[in-house]
Amino acid sequence: MKREIYMDYAATTFVKPEVLKEMNPYFTEYFGNPSSVYYISRKTKMAIVKARESVSKTINANKDEIFFTSGGSEADNWAIKGIALANGNKGRHIITTKIEHHAVLNTCGYLEKHGFEISYLPVDKSGRVDLDSLRKAIREDTILVSVMFANNEIGTLEPIEEIGKLCREKGILFHTDAVQAVGNVPIDVQKMNIDLLSMAAHKFYGPKGMGALYIKKGIKIDGLIQGGSQERGRRAGTENIPGIVGMGKALSLASENMNEESKRLTYLRDRLIDGLLKIPGTRLNGYRTNRLPGNVNVTFDSVDGEVLVMALDDIGIYASTGSACSAGSIEPSHVLTAIGLSDKNAKSSLRLTLGAKTTEEDVDYAVSSLNEIISKLRENNKKWSERID
Amino acid sequence: MKREIYMDYAATTFVKPEVLKEMNPYFTEYFGNPSSVYYISRKTKMAIVKARESVSKTINANKDEIFFTSGGSEADNWAIKGIALANGNKGRHIITTKIEHHAVLNTCGYLEKHGFEISYLPVDKSGRVDLDSLRKAIREDTILVSVMFANNEIGTLEPIEEIGKLCREKGILFHTDAVQAVGNVPIDVQKMNIDLLSMAAHKFYGPKGMGALYIKKGIKIDGLIQGGSQERGRRAGTENIPGIVGMGKALSLASENMNEESKRLTYLRDRLIDGLLKIPGTRLNGYRTNRLPGNVNVTFDSVDGEVLVMALDDIGIYASTGSACSAGSIEPSHVLTAIGLSDKNAKSSLRLTLGAKTTEEDVDYAVSSLNEIISKLRENNKKWSERID
Repeated sequence: MKREIYMDYAATTFVKPEVLKEMNPYFTEYFGNPSSVYYISRKTKMAIVKARESVSKTINANKDEIFFTSGGSEADNWAIKGIALANGNKGRHIITTKIEHHAVLNTCGYLEKHGFEISYLPVDKSGRVDLDSLRKAIREDTILVSVMFANNEIGTLEPIEEIGKLCREKGILFHTDAVQAVGNVPIDVQKMNIDLLSMAAHKFYGPKGMGALYIKKGIKIDGLIQGGSQERGRRAGTENIPGIVGMGKALSLASENMNEESKRLTYLRDRLIDGLLKIPGTRLNGYRTNRLPGNVNVTFDSVDGEVLVMALDDIGIYASTGSACSAGSIEPSHVLTAIGLSDKNAKSSLRLTLGAKTTEEDVDYAVSSLNEIISKLRENNKKWSERID
Repeated sequence: MKREIYMDYAATTFVKPEVLKEMNPYFTEYFGNPSSVYYISRKTKMAIVKARESVSKTINANKDEIFFTSGGSEADNWAIKGIALANGNKGRHIITTKIEHHAVLNTCGYLEKHGFEISYLPVDKSGRVDLDSLRKAIREDTILVSVMFANNEIGTLEPIEEIGKLCREKGILFHTDAVQAVGNVPIDVQKMNIDLLSMAAHKFYGPKGMGALYIKKGIKIDGLIQGGSQERGRRAGTENIPGIVGMGKALSLASENMNEESKRLTYLRDRLIDGLLKIPGTRLNGYRTNRLPGNVNVTFDSVDGEVLVMALDDIGIYASTGSACSAGSIEPSHVLTAIGLSDKNAKSSLRLTLGAKTTEEDVDYAVSSLNEIISKLRENNKKWSERID
């Protein structure tokens, strides 16, 4: 059997067996609509309460500040459009960054077509937002700042606490897309002054199609999905009970193990970075340390990233050039160009993201395989260019 | 062990074991992000293609006209807001009915606050929309008609084909909330001239948190959730693969069995109606025949519906007073008042909906139990009123 090494945990994770086990009875046995009043529905209602507690505890929120959604994209859309539409009379200016996920960027783009003005903050060469540019971008009519907690491509951790403090001082709402961060790094919405936070269960070994938006109590926000009175009237639709249960379980597992797993992944990440940087013509994108524990993103001179991903696929290593949501796109990564890479170098980049099943052996195998593949690719390129010359 | 009889299939259904079995590998084994290019992702991409085919076949659509959503409420919101926002320059008038699900009614209410005008059509005493009132309501600036396929409380089947024909003649888009109908009655979007159709998997033994919107090719509609390029750029968010696979399987099972199961349920429904009508002071709400195969909705004179639901719960029969999404609401059902019931009678109503596991024995047990419970309740009421007198 071919060896299989999954190194794309930032794209999505498998559902942990303990999580699936917890979800299973809610598909077939306790399937009642939680809005109903009879026995099997009371069971599902209680399961939602328990999951909501697990989610709220992870980010130090109150449980009535957690609203389940169908995923991170819905949460981002809800946060940004909901605040814009409910507070448009106060102002129509929103600040975000150039390196957000498309769920934020394209939502902002949509609002631009509907009379809102968006400022896209630049980042430094490691992908970090500069607080001074944020301070300068804030205007009288700014109603929302949206900055991601950790970047999905290069893993850079943003100065969330500082941004939260600044927004609070200025009386501006602060949303963070924490899809890559939740379950991986500690988050405290109170200490960090976060007003809205998006998360997605399939990034921390929970099910796909499941996410949540944290909304600080008292915030004026429109709903994105109107209808029944689920989620205290703020998000309609029959609750996805197995999904909610799975998300709760996945987050409580992640919280229990966070310290230990973070150390383990950081060690593996650094070993991988060290190994890859020994390959000639390799540069690391993003910070050496101030990055997600499992994230590695490198540029290999004169090697096409897509070709590399396919060559790795052939030997059973699953990786990506960047965001899965933009895979197949012919555009260079907007994140890599924002940190100063040329289009050519952006297209010569590879993202390897590590997770629960990654071992030291996997890391070493990936390094030696990449070393070999890159040598061959460069040799072929050389032969081709000699023939053409 | 206490006998358990589930008679609330319109609220939600269990996931069929065959469906869950089909979903299972996609949680743990084939979990790859379908936007990625490597092996385990190609597997998930293929699974989506297969499910989309199953869904499109069921309603005679093309497979590129099916867009997966997180459920019926999202589909309804998307259809109505998406059409309103993309076609607002043509006109800002929408026609719907008084008996729609809240996912439609509250979405329309939301649009009313944002400069749209909504006409709510009345229905006859059986819950059917009158084509003449529809014809009269149509104006120069009408951009959308939204009429549900089958009512969720009283099961009434609307004259969809006639409405579709009329809308097509007038050049107005036609959306139908078919959440209660899909998988239960035959639907042909081409023959019926339907432009947009909402469905929810948990109403036909598929998973919760999963639905779809059919959008006829060429229709101008805004997205509800912006972001990645999933669903051909129209609905962002990492695909809920197990959910999509489950929905596809559930619909192919439903289609295979539809004729047979419809006959079986119609027989059980009629037996239940006959039995209940023998209880003194009982009236059927909705049509005797022109209704969903599994739907029964009755009013019992001088008996509180909520009390009845709790008394039934005590003996293991799970039923409801109406829509699960409005359970616990102190308001009388908007559907029952729209067909002419007084508030008091609307609150004396019970919905029993039958499905896959319902047997003749269950039906007979429900009838005899209700006979007994109602006699007792009425006797108690009498005693109380005598004491007070």
